[in-house]
Amino acid sequence: MNVAILGVGTVGEQVAKILIQNQKLISARAGKDIKPVIGVVRNLDKKRDVNLPLTNDINSVINRDDIDIYIELMGGVDEPYRVVSEILHRKKAVVTANKALLAYHRFKLQNLTGDTPFGFEASVAGGIPIIKALREGLSANQILSINGIMNGTSNYILTSMMNSGVKFEDALKKAQELGYAEADPTFDIGGFDTAHKLLILASIAYGVHGDPEDILIEGIEGITKDDIFFAQDFEYVIKLLAIAKKVGDKVELRVHPALVAKDKMIAKVDGVMNAVSVAGDAVGETMFYGPGAGGSATASAVISDLIDIARGTNFPMMGYKSPLEIKSLELLAQDEIRTKYYFRLKVDDKVGVLARITNLMSENNLSIDSFLQKPHIKNEENDKKATLFFTTHTSREADVKRVIRILEEQEFIREKPFMIRIEQ
Amino acid sequence: MNVAILGVGTVGEQVAKILIQNQKLISARAGKDIKPVIGVVRNLDKKRDVNLPLTNDINSVINRDDIDIYIELMGGVDEPYRVVSEILHRKKAVVTANKALLAYHRFKLQNLTGDTPFGFEASVAGGIPIIKALREGLSANQILSINGIMNGTSNYILTSMMNSGVKFEDALKKAQELGYAEADPTFDIGGFDTAHKLLILASIAYGVHGDPEDILIEGIEGITKDDIFFAQDFEYVIKLLAIAKKVGDKVELRVHPALVAKDKMIAKVDGVMNAVSVAGDAVGETMFYGPGAGGSATASAVISDLIDIARGTNFPMMGYKSPLEIKSLELLAQDEIRTKYYFRLKVDDKVGVLARITNLMSENNLSIDSFLQKPHIKNEENDKKATLFFTTHTSREADVKRVIRILEEQEFIREKPFMIRIEQ
Repeated sequence: MNVAILGVGTVGEQVAKILIQNQKLISARAGKDIKPVIGVVRNLDKKRDVNLPLTNDINSVINRDDIDIYIELMGGVDEPYRVVSEILHRKKAVVTANKALLAYHRFKLQNLTGDTPFGFEASVAGGIPIIKALREGLSANQILSINGIMNGTSNYILTSMMNSGVKFEDALKKAQELGYAEADPTFDIGGFDTAHKLLILASIAYGVHGDPEDILIEGIEGITKDDIFFAQDFEYVIKLLAIAKKVGDKVELRVHPALVAKDKMIAKVDGVMNAVSVAGDAVGETMFYGPGAGGSATASAVISDLIDIARGTNFPMMGYKSPLEIKSLELLAQDEIRTKYYFRLKVDDKVGVLARITNLMSENNLSIDSFLQKPHIKNEENDKKATLFFTTHTSREADVKRVIRILEEQEFIREKPFMIRIEQ
Repeated sequence: MNVAILGVGTVGEQVAKILIQNQKLISARAGKDIKPVIGVVRNLDKKRDVNLPLTNDINSVINRDDIDIYIELMGGVDEPYRVVSEILHRKKAVVTANKALLAYHRFKLQNLTGDTPFGFEASVAGGIPIIKALREGLSANQILSINGIMNGTSNYILTSMMNSGVKFEDALKKAQELGYAEADPTFDIGGFDTAHKLLILASIAYGVHGDPEDILIEGIEGITKDDIFFAQDFEYVIKLLAIAKKVGDKVELRVHPALVAKDKMIAKVDGVMNAVSVAGDAVGETMFYGPGAGGSATASAVISDLIDIARGTNFPMMGYKSPLEIKSLELLAQDEIRTKYYFRLKVDDKVGVLARITNLMSENNLSIDSFLQKPHIKNEENDKKATLFFTTHTSREADVKRVIRILEEQEFIREKPFMIRIEQ
């Protein structure tokens, strides 16, 4: 089988390299030879560590008849969509690691595929075969929930904050120095990267439609040492979670930092590693752990798709032939989300404030589960502020949002109220 | 597709139940209906919670032409082998959860299968789709090592000993009360169950032949509170590990309790849960976690095989068509195993003993990495014994075995020397 690699960067180089390095093993498993024959790049002058003919003429490659599988590693959304659509029209197999492409176009692509194989294992959680697990390994199950740590940058930062007591800004800087975070880290720490991956997994589990703009996405930028202090005191860790949960006949999808009880398996995932916990009605709780990024780990997933395609053992994209075969579940409105909440409030340290806050909460259906006032640390600050921490029993998102709006208007509030959801 | 269930116990009942309960979802994923049509049982009088015609005449079922897939859940080795062979001769697909059958007959069965589908996902680690992960998800990789916690009974006992400070005997008794351990627990706590599963995984990763009798198997019966004391002091946990490791062109296979650094991901797997950590040359470190036993979790794996077979997406048993396609690796001789070791020695508390032990170790190529003498606890025992703990740098198994034999003969040794291997 001849393979074209569209986009020869870190991942593309590794795909070519591993196909050569593990050639015997891969052809034994695939039942035939898989050979990278051409790479497409934008800049032919750039030095690359790859033993592969290169061109910058993508159309000539798309139109070649001798190519069986195209690996799309171009990045972006519109141009890859155009290219991949054209390849699918020519009934040639596609493998992609492009999560943004799938976050926006997965159902259109599924309709285009027909019987043409389309692999995207590498688009979620790098080297972890989570798409295969969800679509095939757990195929007997109604998926009850998915909880994922799917952004290594954010998990590295949060782990540093929890374990080494560094501030968010310093942890981010260290991550940038180590190459774990981009110069502009917004896509990672803002939760957008995680949201793309969540939409892909949720489509397989629930056939749920929707673009990233339709779901709740919050990043980790607002987390301070105070939140870490609370988490440690109450035996939580803070993780950037992707959550998909079946609620009646709707699906809740959200990405946000969460307090997770520290004895939960997903709470134990540290550093740049990724993990996806999947609960199924038959299997119970499972978790899939591994490197979520990196050229070689991502190439491992790309090549597993090539092998499946070579064997003819690849599943249809979403695990069933047509979107009509199972009833797609609709997104739950964000206001209807129900979970437990944590609040950090910086207030004037004076008589009556606590009573006003607790009244305000109970008037808005929030029932307090625990309360902590941070012990005053000597020399910390000299003015009369107090930091208060509350957690609630299970509450409605709409009520929580309303309380935050009301709190913001109170004269005793000294800093924008901060909230983290609590998950278990 | 019509399915016959041979052996309708805990797992068989759940298979029938889930096939009915998740019927719509399963047929959407399988592309056709999967229907259990007959169950074979030994005792027709026994009450069963299953909506399925039953018979005790297995031969009549094997000879039925309307059955497409047979699920073997009979237990045992010889009788299932006879039955499964007959079914394969009739070119009918087989799905089994029987680890013992595969531990002894997997290569003979592979030769019998030809193009007939044979699924055994449920034979290792219950609901965790580890066979699919190893054979398909990580198919691009040379597998460097596999480290598994694959016996829930043993992991429950060890977790209780570590976290609650109970003795082995008491932890075992509790496990029996909770239904986690059998009345005769030898198969679980002796490491034999784990060894069966290890052989199956190692065959997929390395094409390695061999029966359980050929590999190193040690159980957890000898572990005492002293070992837990040492582990806690040196930041280890004790786990019953299944280890497969490529060493040159041979494979090391062993099952034994191991000291594992407590920050390793596999060290964090507690209670009855299972996990398999797989390191691949492309992907790096991955781990697959979930329930390793139980009717419903095991049924989840059985049904995923049914769906793969219905779709025609099942792989050949070992992941490649014929054993000749990849070079099978040979087992490393047990004496050639190299790892780090921990010793617990109970000795006469008198001058010169420590020097004699350390001399004896160095004369036999064991280099000491750490040493601890247990602080004497008041009223513990009144005679003059001391408990000594040593760990070594990487050493050869043959040297370690020799040292233990020599130590046993020394007059100052008050109890059989105890050794645990250290893994990372």
